[in-house]
Amino acid sequence: MTETDYKNVLDAIFYPESVAIIGASNSFNKWGSFITAHLIVGGYMGQVYPVNPKEEKIFGRNVYKKIGDVPGKVDLAVVATPAKVVPDVVKECIEKKVKSLVIVTSGFSETGDDGKRLEEELAQMINKAGIPMVGPNTMGALCTQKRLFTVGSPIFPRKGSISFVTQSGNLGVQMLEWAENNSVGISKMVGSGNEACIAKEHYIEYLAQDKDTRVIMLYLEGVDDGSHFLEAAKKATLKKPIIALKGGRTAAGGRAAHSHTGSMAGDSAVMTSVFRQSGIIEAKNASDMYDLSMAFDSLPLPRGDRVGIITLGGGWGVLTTDALVEQGLCLATLDDSVIEKLDTLLPPFWSRSNPIDLVGQVIPDVYMEAVQIVTECSGVDAVICLGMIGISNIGIRTLLSSAAASDMDNIEYYVREAQEKYQQIEQDILSRFNELMNQLKKPIINVSLYSGRRRAGLRLKSGYSEVIYTTPEKAVQSLVAMYNYYKFLKGHGVVE
Amino acid sequence: MTETDYKNVLDAIFYPESVAIIGASNSFNKWGSFITAHLIVGGYMGQVYPVNPKEEKIFGRNVYKKIGDVPGKVDLAVVATPAKVVPDVVKECIEKKVKSLVIVTSGFSETGDDGKRLEEELAQMINKAGIPMVGPNTMGALCTQKRLFTVGSPIFPRKGSISFVTQSGNLGVQMLEWAENNSVGISKMVGSGNEACIAKEHYIEYLAQDKDTRVIMLYLEGVDDGSHFLEAAKKATLKKPIIALKGGRTAAGGRAAHSHTGSMAGDSAVMTSVFRQSGIIEAKNASDMYDLSMAFDSLPLPRGDRVGIITLGGGWGVLTTDALVEQGLCLATLDDSVIEKLDTLLPPFWSRSNPIDLVGQVIPDVYMEAVQIVTECSGVDAVICLGMIGISNIGIRTLLSSAAASDMDNIEYYVREAQEKYQQIEQDILSRFNELMNQLKKPIINVSLYSGRRRAGLRLKSGYSEVIYTTPEKAVQSLVAMYNYYKFLKGHGVVE
Repeated sequence: MTETDYKNVLDAIFYPESVAIIGASNSFNKWGSFITAHLIVGGYMGQVYPVNPKEEKIFGRNVYKKIGDVPGKVDLAVVATPAKVVPDVVKECIEKKVKSLVIVTSGFSETGDDGKRLEEELAQMINKAGIPMVGPNTMGALCTQKRLFTVGSPIFPRKGSISFVTQSGNLGVQMLEWAENNSVGISKMVGSGNEACIAKEHYIEYLAQDKDTRVIMLYLEGVDDGSHFLEAAKKATLKKPIIALKGGRTAAGGRAAHSHTGSMAGDSAVMTSVFRQSGIIEAKNASDMYDLSMAFDSLPLPRGDRVGIITLGGGWGVLTTDALVEQGLCLATLDDSVIEKLDTLLPPFWSRSNPIDLVGQVIPDVYMEAVQIVTECSGVDAVICLGMIGISNIGIRTLLSSAAASDMDNIEYYVREAQEKYQQIEQDILSRFNELMNQLKKPIINVSLYSGRRRAGLRLKSGYSEVIYTTPEKAVQSLVAMYNYYKFLKGHGVVE
Repeated sequence: MTETDYKNVLDAIFYPESVAIIGASNSFNKWGSFITAHLIVGGYMGQVYPVNPKEEKIFGRNVYKKIGDVPGKVDLAVVATPAKVVPDVVKECIEKKVKSLVIVTSGFSETGDDGKRLEEELAQMINKAGIPMVGPNTMGALCTQKRLFTVGSPIFPRKGSISFVTQSGNLGVQMLEWAENNSVGISKMVGSGNEACIAKEHYIEYLAQDKDTRVIMLYLEGVDDGSHFLEAAKKATLKKPIIALKGGRTAAGGRAAHSHTGSMAGDSAVMTSVFRQSGIIEAKNASDMYDLSMAFDSLPLPRGDRVGIITLGGGWGVLTTDALVEQGLCLATLDDSVIEKLDTLLPPFWSRSNPIDLVGQVIPDVYMEAVQIVTECSGVDAVICLGMIGISNIGIRTLLSSAAASDMDNIEYYVREAQEKYQQIEQDILSRFNELMNQLKKPIINVSLYSGRRRAGLRLKSGYSEVIYTTPEKAVQSLVAMYNYYKFLKGHGVVE
């Protein structure tokens, strides 16, 4: 099957009209049970056909003895049977003319020579039939646009536009659980597993032209076909950013990767060079990959390196400035007209330079106005806002303390009202910032200094939306990566 | 007042028997109101005397017109009046023979020359009287052992043994809010403010001999008396670790620091050299300072660089190995007897080398046994455990999914029972690990890969307790810093 073929047929995996689960089960601790449950609970928008020769009903659904018994057509067959019966099961799938396969079963090339032979036979049969196959030894695949959750873990992230190709299934589901917890929108996830037929480069080609994907996240341990990977990545990065993390960067890590996925990790320097040549953004660790993807998905790219900082605490302004400079960006210089405007807004003892310390003035209108003045400044390419978003938490606790100290009777009412008020204020601030971003095409990044989850706003098709980090270093890191990507696109004449 | 004097009198600030708040207030948005409320709500174990010439009652307490009217003795007077009346207030405090002062009021040297003169006069008067004074321009001080929360923000961390000296009040309270949210135990926090009388080096000397402090956290922007600071730090680090973060490391950050606290940031290279000479552990950012302090507070120091990794996901094992090697530690080699023991415990296709991938075997007894075997291995100095702690979250969701898919009636009961069971399992695992740490004096660090807060266990006087991070890189970073500190202590003959 050629590259072009994959691009056209992978829709059958991510947007199937019907899914059969072969090896569906009522036994709680089996993959065939997990996947069936998650597909049902996830609200899959299509037909579900559990297949198992020994069961009558699974989760209240009729069960088919074999795939051939399924009455309708099957776009996707998920296989979760023991390894030794997989070849027969796949044969039946081919006879049934299923359009695509996800083989969850492990026990193939990752276990040694016997498994490798079994996998090769399987791949030959499947390639001959011209069916796209994910795996084997994969955590599964999901697509929020179709509410398709054929994965072994109960992860139901919000619909969005980040898609994740991962050679480690665990890493995939755990990072998607972070996404779900932080309201970060996801389009697709696929565990590439042993990559017997479809490799990372094929998924990249598919996602590059997928209308529901805006950012591609990639975890990889090794690449078999380096030149195809490079070519696929080069084309993709001109359309959308790829944020990649390489596992097995060190010799010891490479050995661990080999025992994990059976892949040869390859030379780390070579891979870094491939990333650089192809415009892939390399993340240092899983957490960074995730944080960078949030920024690329939700914010406009900065068109320069001059950053304005608005802070409610002087110390945080200092640390953010250090991080900016250490990571290669500049503290923007505020021109006189900007200083004059801020003079009319802020108390006389304000810093009169960037970072703009609001010296504890927790007044939403002042804050929003200051951010607008700075964002509009022609010498500012990006803005970092520290301390205002997230402060509601502490505001409510302050109220609570005073109420508790005075033995007030109606504490609950008081607090509920305050919570609503604070939530409204934060929402208003974020809305105003989003308007500013859409109008001026400059990123505004929020840092919540009190405990709280990092989070991204619901990004509409038409506009940018908020990103909230928990440390200033994360905000700076994202700006650096986005500015570098802007320069890459500009160098290729893709943006002005 | 000399260094020795401070060491002896600072108890009056942190362990006062009675506190007067001068400028206490009923107006919700005033510092005098915040501090009084927090002191009361925090459960301060001593007498509270609100002082305000215009009020009768504050939070139901009798109010004194002036400090001289307070009937009993006053160990600590917190001053939150406007700057211009501070000198008169302090005069009255001296007459009243208060034992210590916290001057929260701002508007002194940080605002320019006039403020600087006012501050100098104040310092002279206070030094002459021989009273220790925190500030001015400080967020306040707290001591959990006395339940003393004379701070402007409602932060009530758990009693513990990390003490924090911070030149930025905001940074101080925000980091303590992280501590509160993650159950990390704190002993003291003090915002050093403008340091008119007591400087960072005095606090270090005091905390070095404070029996309730096991780890010192330090945020600093500049140091006035470099040689005193170096000398104090040198002595302190032989007794307990100091984890420090320098704000104003870059020229631009230094200028921001100057406008923030009025302090000259000084040369960053000089400060890094001072840190190195004195054995201070330098953190790269606030989040790292916090995470390192947790580890030093709760775990035994590793006496070597050989690390064992036990993981429930292969990809995470690979990434942890990369982080280990990149940060200068080694992957421990498992000797044959250890491999043999693990062979009897794990399925035949386990990795048979470090990292030990439990290949999805979520069986608590197997997990605990594997960790014990690895920790007991003489070639292992420290252990990182990935994936087991925190998995309860996902376990419960899996149950929920299956229950929801089958339209079960008694979901709530089912889930409650599962939650209790999982919590018990995690508690059992952590208890076993803590026993192992106490017995073998080797650190075992947990990484919870699903969303969740980093957290430290309640450390008993007599033993070590668990630390849970959210990324493997944090675990590795802590081991590196602890091993370096071990070598520092060994080089000075303090440990074997």
